[in-house]
Amino acid sequence: MAAWGERLAGVRGVLLDISGVLYDCGAGGGRPIAGSVEAVARLKRSHLKVRFCTNDSQKSRGDLVGLLRQLGFDISEDEVTSPAPATCQILKERGLRPHLLIHEGVRSEFDEIDTSNPNCVVIADAAEGFSYQNMNKAFQVLMELENPVLISLGKGRYYKETSGLMLDVGAYVKALEYACGIEAEVVGKPSPEFFKAALQAIGVEAHQAVMIGDDIMCDVGGAQRCGMRGLQVRTGKFRPTDEHHPEVKPDGYVDNLAEAVALLLQHADK
Amino acid sequence: MAAWGERLAGVRGVLLDISGVLYDCGAGGGRPIAGSVEAVARLKRSHLKVRFCTNDSQKSRGDLVGLLRQLGFDISEDEVTSPAPATCQILKERGLRPHLLIHEGVRSEFDEIDTSNPNCVVIADAAEGFSYQNMNKAFQVLMELENPVLISLGKGRYYKETSGLMLDVGAYVKALEYACGIEAEVVGKPSPEFFKAALQAIGVEAHQAVMIGDDIMCDVGGAQRCGMRGLQVRTGKFRPTDEHHPEVKPDGYVDNLAEAVALLLQHADK
Repeated sequence: MAAWGERLAGVRGVLLDISGVLYDCGAGGGRPIAGSVEAVARLKRSHLKVRFCTNDSQKSRGDLVGLLRQLGFDISEDEVTSPAPATCQILKERGLRPHLLIHEGVRSEFDEIDTSNPNCVVIADAAEGFSYQNMNKAFQVLMELENPVLISLGKGRYYKETSGLMLDVGAYVKALEYACGIEAEVVGKPSPEFFKAALQAIGVEAHQAVMIGDDIMCDVGGAQRCGMRGLQVRTGKFRPTDEHHPEVKPDGYVDNLAEAVALLLQHADK
Repeated sequence: MAAWGERLAGVRGVLLDISGVLYDCGAGGGRPIAGSVEAVARLKRSHLKVRFCTNDSQKSRGDLVGLLRQLGFDISEDEVTSPAPATCQILKERGLRPHLLIHEGVRSEFDEIDTSNPNCVVIADAAEGFSYQNMNKAFQVLMELENPVLISLGKGRYYKETSGLMLDVGAYVKALEYACGIEAEVVGKPSPEFFKAALQAIGVEAHQAVMIGDDIMCDVGGAQRCGMRGLQVRTGKFRPTDEHHPEVKPDGYVDNLAEAVALLLQHADK
């Protein structure tokens, strides 16, 4: 593989995944990944543009930022691209009234959305909300629609909590897709529109940007398909088998965000 | 389409799906579909060989037959091909010790199976058992295996209860397949081995047999891929859109089992 200097040449902006890169979520709010608090601070003191780009759909953007600040991170709401606000915009533009299969923690993001007489289903990481009863309800709403529309906040396979690996929304999306014979529209990574919105917010072109994430498919693969570079951290949901992934070859592996930032500050935009 | 006489020529044996053809399951045990009790009786008085071929994995074979007898059906345990006994045989042959994600009603079928230190997951229609917690447990067992094996009792998309359409095991199989990046082994319809076992039990060749079911994919499509003919009933989970299915074209549609049996007795083996 080429030297880091070559791989990171011309980088002007950095997109950071949150869960598994900044912190591991879990009971009591979770815990920061070693070195990440200082790495974010170093990055924000540098000449590089920074944007947080998350698929977290269990919490409102405000609650997520509040939690991260409590854990010591220098982050504010207007630095975060997250799927719930993007979904609300789509619902309004298309006159969609969703049945919501979502976590209570993110419900406030949908306060202004009309959910009467639903003509679509919005699914997010509902966690314990993915009961058999709730899944059937969403299924039944879709089956009663002439043209069923399923909008998914992300399509992650799983994520890491402090207690272990947990199923993510993508698994439950697949269940509904199969049962209904439909394909969901994904808002969030790896959707190109979502990455583009994050890049636009910092005024950086795809070829000048690097995405740092723990998800080989959604973060690294998604970013690369948009013309960005993608680095995978060996934290969060990373598994050694990711390094032999049949489809996605990251532009580099790093042990954690701290290493990624050290490399970026040494080599980027030179 | 050809006349019924032509379509049913040479039929010597009939495979009958149970749920959605004989009865609709649901609260209080469910209810027979109009005309089906008498249709089964007529068929069994005829010269045609009959085998019940079900993917039901919520109940043991004994409990299912007991329920159907209470509803008035002439049926005995040794006339039924069902996925749990077939699965136990596979587990024993391959030395597999399953983690069971199944309904309490079918657990007795696995009484003789070693479930210690699991090296595979068996998933059946667990219904309310498909909690977020239970799904995560099965997911975690699979992720800890070097070569994850997932065995599924059927892969139905949904079925009809008296209260409405309900998600079937296939949806939850898709969730685990996606999350783990694996493909399940299916025991039950539409697996060719399963159909062949049912045909073998009545000594009938595939080209001499017709499958009658309400599932366009698993019953009709599966049977046709085995060289059988497949009739779809307009009962159970049947939906008008099935009649324009992009992949599967049944050998005929009938309003219910009673019509199918009347046609068979008039035209088969002539």
